[in-house]
Amino acid sequence: MPRRRRRTSLSDTGELDFLRRLLPYFRPGAAVIVGPGDDCAVVAVGNRRWLLTTDSLVDDVHFRRDWMTARQLGRKAYLVNASDIAAMGGRPRFCLVSAGAPPSYRFSALMGIHRGIEAAARETGAHVVGGNLSRSRTLFVSVTLIGEAPRRPLLRRGARPGDALFVTGQLGAAALGLRRLRRDAHARGYAVSRFREPPCRLAAGAVLARTGIASAAIDISDGLLRDLGHLCAASGVGARIDLARVPCAPEARRHGAALALHGGEDYELLCAVPPHRLSMVERLRSRLGCDFTQIGHVMPSRFHVRVVDSAGRPLRTAMAGFDHFAPGRRT
Amino acid sequence: MPRRRRRTSLSDTGELDFLRRLLPYFRPGAAVIVGPGDDCAVVAVGNRRWLLTTDSLVDDVHFRRDWMTARQLGRKAYLVNASDIAAMGGRPRFCLVSAGAPPSYRFSALMGIHRGIEAAARETGAHVVGGNLSRSRTLFVSVTLIGEAPRRPLLRRGARPGDALFVTGQLGAAALGLRRLRRDAHARGYAVSRFREPPCRLAAGAVLARTGIASAAIDISDGLLRDLGHLCAASGVGARIDLARVPCAPEARRHGAALALHGGEDYELLCAVPPHRLSMVERLRSRLGCDFTQIGHVMPSRFHVRVVDSAGRPLRTAMAGFDHFAPGRRT
Repeated sequence: MPRRRRRTSLSDTGELDFLRRLLPYFRPGAAVIVGPGDDCAVVAVGNRRWLLTTDSLVDDVHFRRDWMTARQLGRKAYLVNASDIAAMGGRPRFCLVSAGAPPSYRFSALMGIHRGIEAAARETGAHVVGGNLSRSRTLFVSVTLIGEAPRRPLLRRGARPGDALFVTGQLGAAALGLRRLRRDAHARGYAVSRFREPPCRLAAGAVLARTGIASAAIDISDGLLRDLGHLCAASGVGARIDLARVPCAPEARRHGAALALHGGEDYELLCAVPPHRLSMVERLRSRLGCDFTQIGHVMPSRFHVRVVDSAGRPLRTAMAGFDHFAPGRRT
Repeated sequence: MPRRRRRTSLSDTGELDFLRRLLPYFRPGAAVIVGPGDDCAVVAVGNRRWLLTTDSLVDDVHFRRDWMTARQLGRKAYLVNASDIAAMGGRPRFCLVSAGAPPSYRFSALMGIHRGIEAAARETGAHVVGGNLSRSRTLFVSVTLIGEAPRRPLLRRGARPGDALFVTGQLGAAALGLRRLRRDAHARGYAVSRFREPPCRLAAGAVLARTGIASAAIDISDGLLRDLGHLCAASGVGARIDLARVPCAPEARRHGAALALHGGEDYELLCAVPPHRLSMVERLRSRLGCDFTQIGHVMPSRFHVRVVDSAGRPLRTAMAGFDHFAPGRRT
């Protein structure tokens, strides 16, 4: 019997590993200021800089059809992209939608998806300028956003040891909502609504970028620790998180710290603020439009990412977060 | 027994009907010069105009995995978008990719898709600047292209009665290739290769736009008559096609005119040329990089779209083309 060659599938390697191995194939270009690997690409267009980002919501992976209305689905597909624009301090301007739906999918539901996208775009000052609809066994909604970059876009790289780490809003509620929806598609309450509708941190991101207060930023989509890990890797630093300071949503608090640290789906912003700019935080707080909480510090890279309790003792916590292809991962 | 309310699904209405009913929801904006409904959107960014377009290839709808290599799939996903940029006379600059794949999908195949996109982007002067990979039961590849618009982008509207109608290249081979692949996934030959790899008409589109020779243009993706119908509807005109003049690919000729008229997947350009610019055609021909054949004339709208034989007798031909949701439609 011939030996079967083992084939590596995505469930063996995961999305991150795939992206890591793909990056060398991208060529830098004069017009490409930031290529793949940050929340958005930054490109030079004439005398301006623009942000480009794309993200999909896929049936049975990111949502189930009975978990939310079509309009909520469209809104969320837009907002998860707007979150990437927010993380760089930009302003969404143009939106493209590529959707796939089974032939049996209701016309009114597809209209709902597009009206959800359209309404969210309008609220954030963007225009839906085009799209495409295809037949597909699996329902999916891919949104591409083109945004205006601020003069100095916030990048994942740039954090330095000694910088303070801040997050907007509260963490953990959306992950709790997801957990509840998995048990009961008709679950209700704040946590569920938080899963269905991510916050819009465009105003906060714009203030952070315009004032130059942040040295680095990322949006928290895959869980605080995982996205902090991305920021640290890009900046070549480590980090210390004080567990007691992490702003855990009240509903999620009863379930321990795991939801706030690893839960994902928060779409809050995480940023680093250098010590000499800490005095600006109080003045800016009211303009951010949301809570803004210091949760720890940037450390030298050898420190890796540690979570410490109130006595300063490091917690054993795996750096897990959301990876679409992680073995055994289920929606 | 309660009466069940009949629900309208996409297979009842089709993609075009959906888009028609969706259009009123899009708002025009100062920065949006051409919104949804043309091959690309045209937007103003600073002092420049840009083209935006997005399109997906979905497993079991646009392709089957055993019909082409992953690299060919990536290449095609890029080229069908480049075709929209070509139809407006633009130049692709930035590319974003949103892909979905089952966990069992081979890592090397996903790399192949992205390398196919990357190579096609490089050949056409564009950069892949970002992307996103998600788990999905159905394999799909969504590409978004951002291109530089020429000074006067070619639009679907603008054709006037009396204009001559031209197409680039030859028609029908890709549809024949698709037909052969449906019967035998390992079919070979020119027609099959034409289905796998659409032509790149960026040079032709750029010449047509730069010289101002064309009054309107569209790319032929859903079949000559269907896309001609779009151009006519946008321009408020009708058209007469001389069947004998339609440049049918030699392989497809044996199968009658249907493949060239309705086949789809050609990705050639169709354009209208006003009578006073016809003298320019001969001079430009060598710069287009492909055949450029006059196939008929633009007529007043009451004429609708007619195909006539060599004696001038109208043929009975249904205005059918590719609609992803058309009842009974199968890949």
